[in-house]
Amino acid sequence: LKFIEGGITAPEGFMAAVARAGLRRASRKDIAVIYSQKECNAAAAFTTNRLRAACIEVTEKHLRASGGRLNCIVVNSGNANALTGKEGIRNAERMCAEAARLLGIRREMVAVASTGIIGVQLPIEKVLKGLRDAIPRLSDSTIAGTQAAEAIMTTDRVRKECAIETELHDGRKIKLGGMTKGSGMIAPRMRGLHATTLTFITTDAPVQRTYLQHCLDMCVEDTFNLISIDGDMSTNDCIILAANGAALGPTIRKDTEFEEALHAMLASLAKKVAMDGEGETKLIVVEVRNAKSNEDARNAALSVVNSNLVKCAIFGSDPNIGRIAAALGASGCSVNFSCVDISLCGEKVVSGGIVEMDRQKVVKKMRAREILIEVDLHAGKYSATAMGSDLSYDYIRINSAYST
Amino acid sequence: LKFIEGGITAPEGFMAAVARAGLRRASRKDIAVIYSQKECNAAAAFTTNRLRAACIEVTEKHLRASGGRLNCIVVNSGNANALTGKEGIRNAERMCAEAARLLGIRREMVAVASTGIIGVQLPIEKVLKGLRDAIPRLSDSTIAGTQAAEAIMTTDRVRKECAIETELHDGRKIKLGGMTKGSGMIAPRMRGLHATTLTFITTDAPVQRTYLQHCLDMCVEDTFNLISIDGDMSTNDCIILAANGAALGPTIRKDTEFEEALHAMLASLAKKVAMDGEGETKLIVVEVRNAKSNEDARNAALSVVNSNLVKCAIFGSDPNIGRIAAALGASGCSVNFSCVDISLCGEKVVSGGIVEMDRQKVVKKMRAREILIEVDLHAGKYSATAMGSDLSYDYIRINSAYST
Repeated sequence: LKFIEGGITAPEGFMAAVARAGLRRASRKDIAVIYSQKECNAAAAFTTNRLRAACIEVTEKHLRASGGRLNCIVVNSGNANALTGKEGIRNAERMCAEAARLLGIRREMVAVASTGIIGVQLPIEKVLKGLRDAIPRLSDSTIAGTQAAEAIMTTDRVRKECAIETELHDGRKIKLGGMTKGSGMIAPRMRGLHATTLTFITTDAPVQRTYLQHCLDMCVEDTFNLISIDGDMSTNDCIILAANGAALGPTIRKDTEFEEALHAMLASLAKKVAMDGEGETKLIVVEVRNAKSNEDARNAALSVVNSNLVKCAIFGSDPNIGRIAAALGASGCSVNFSCVDISLCGEKVVSGGIVEMDRQKVVKKMRAREILIEVDLHAGKYSATAMGSDLSYDYIRINSAYST
Repeated sequence: LKFIEGGITAPEGFMAAVARAGLRRASRKDIAVIYSQKECNAAAAFTTNRLRAACIEVTEKHLRASGGRLNCIVVNSGNANALTGKEGIRNAERMCAEAARLLGIRREMVAVASTGIIGVQLPIEKVLKGLRDAIPRLSDSTIAGTQAAEAIMTTDRVRKECAIETELHDGRKIKLGGMTKGSGMIAPRMRGLHATTLTFITTDAPVQRTYLQHCLDMCVEDTFNLISIDGDMSTNDCIILAANGAALGPTIRKDTEFEEALHAMLASLAKKVAMDGEGETKLIVVEVRNAKSNEDARNAALSVVNSNLVKCAIFGSDPNIGRIAAALGASGCSVNFSCVDISLCGEKVVSGGIVEMDRQKVVKKMRAREILIEVDLHAGKYSATAMGSDLSYDYIRINSAYST
C-alpha cells in the first residue's frame, strides 16, 4: 500500500463541497458535504456516551432504514446539536431532507454529523442555506476534499486527511480517502468497538456490508480506541466508512490487503488527532509489551497516557518516573514491579526498580516532539500502543473560556 | 457532637512530635510521630494501586502481626518510599524498629506512612536521626498535633486537622482527632472500601476492633472515596484510625453517636483535601439525586467532578452546560436526558433540555469560591455528593516540574 496525496475525494466517484454558514465565526467554512452518485455500502461506529447528539440518532436511524447504505454525508462544525431535545432531532432531519432534495435522493440515504458547542440549538436556516450553497459546487477535485477536512475543524490547529492506494489480493487497484477532526473531549472506550471524534472514510472498493463493518470495528479497536487527549468522552463521536464500489469487480467479502489499507488509514488519522490535542506540545506514545492479557495491555497503556500527572511531567520535560509506575499500578493490570522494565525516550529508567539514570541526558531527550514510553510487564504475550498529548497551560487557556 | 480546637492530640492519651530530617528541603519539618502509651485498637484502609509503597506493605504486615493493635505511627514527607524494592521495605522496617527501640515497644506496634516523590530511596540515616530528634519531645499539647499536621504536608497549601467531641449513647464523653494531607494524585476508587491520601485519626473511645474497621470502611465510602483532584491514584494512600480507650468504660460494639462523629471527622477532612487540590481556585461540589442505584449516583457525581473539561470551564467561570451533561452521559448511569434537571450555582440550567438562562448572572455566580452543581436524574431514589477542585494554570505549573 502507498500513501498518496489528497483525502476523501481520492477514491473514484466521491465528491465534496463546503460552505460558510456562519455558525460560529463568519469567516470560517463550517459546512462540509461528501457525496457519491453511486450508492455506498456504509459501516459506522458511534459514541457510547448516554447523551447522544441528535445527529447520531438520525444517522443511525437512516442507516437502519436504508439497509446500511448511503449517498451523502452532511457535516457542520460550530454546533454539536447535542442536548437539544426534539427540536435538535427535527433540525438534524431537516439537514438530511434538504441535502436529499437538492441531490434528488431519499433522505435515508443521507447521514449527518455535527461538532461544536453542546446545548445550543442549531441555527437551522443558516445551515440549510449553507447546504444550498455547497451542494451545487460538489467536485471530485483534491482541493474539494481538503476544504472539507478544513470545514469540520473546531479547535484543531491543522486539518487531518489521508489517502491510500493499494492492490487487492486479485490485483485490482483501489483507493481509500479519509478525514478526521478532534482535539479536545477525546477519550477512548476501553470495552467494545466504538468510535471517537468525527472521522469519514471513503473507498472505491466494492465491499460487502457486514464485512465492511467487521473491518471497521477491528481497526478502530487499536487505533481510535487507544488515543486519549483528556479522558472526556464526547456526545458526538462517530466514524462513517462509505464504500461505493466504483473500482468495480467482484464484491469483497474478505481481503487482507483491504484490511491492511483500512488499518493504515485509521492509524494515520488517529495519530494526527493525538498530535493535535488541545494545547498539545508533545505526542506521548506508550507501548506496553508482554502483558498477561489483551485487556491488561490496553488498560495499562491507556492508564499511563491518560494520567494528568504523567502528561504534566512530560510537558515540563521532567523525568518523574514514579508517576509512570503509579499509573501502571492504578490500571489494575497484572504486574510484579520487581520485574518490570520501563524505558523513557529510549533510556532504561526502571528495571525491577528505579535505575540510576543520567538525569540531564533524559531531560534533554524529553525536549523532543514525540515522547516514547516503553513498558515490558514480563507477564504474558499481549501488547498495546496508546497515544495522547501532554497537558499544558494552553489546554487550560483553550478550555476555560470555550463557550464565552 | 461539636467541633473543638486541635487535631490528633485532642483525644486523651495521644502525643505527637515532629522533626526536620531534611528529606526534601532543609527548612521544613518532615517527620511526624503519633504515640499513645496505651495500646490502641487500629483500623486501616490502603490504596488499591498495584504499586504499593514499602510503608504500606510494612504497616499491613505489622497490623496483622499485632492483631490489629498499635502504639505508634511514624510518618515522613518528602519521599514516598515507593518503587524502591527490597531496600525500601528494609528502610520502612528500620523506621519502625528505631521508633520501637526508642519507645520500648515491639516493632509490630508501629505503623509507618510516607508521602512525596516516588522511585527514590529514602535517605534512611536522615530519617532515623529525625525520629531520634522527635521522640524525646513527644507531647500531648495542641500545638504538637498541629505541628504534626504541618510536617506531613507536601504540595498542600494549608494544614488540615480537625477535632470533635461527642457524647456516646451511654453519656460518656469521647473525643476524636484527625489530620490529613493531600493535594495531588488524588482519585477515589469507585468500588470497595479504599483510602485516599494520608489520613490519621485518633480517638480515646474504647472501640472493639472489628467494629472500628466497619465504621471506618462505611465512613470512607462517602467521604474520601468521593473526592477527586486529578483522577490519579496514589501508591501511598492510607487511612489509619487508632482508638486507645483512654476514655474508659465498656467497650463499644455499636454506637451511632460514635459513627456520626467519625463520619463528621472524615467528611470535614475530605472536604479540606478537596479544597486544597493542586492549583485549586474553586471547590466543585456535585450533588446527584434520584439515581436508579447507589452506584449510578456515585459514578455520575464522580464523572462530573473528574472531567477535565468541566474543571477548566469552572476555573474560567464559563457556564459550559454541555460539558456537565456530556460527563453525566459518559458515566454510564441510567439517564433519560428528556427529564434531567441540572442547576449550576443555584440557577436551573437544564430541565429536559437547556433552559434559557441569564448568562451574565450565572457567570457572576460562578466567580464564587464554591461551585455547586445539582443533578436530579428522576430515575430512582439514590443520592451521592462528590467534591473536587478545578483545573488551573497552577496545576500545570506545580506538576510540570515536580521532580526537578
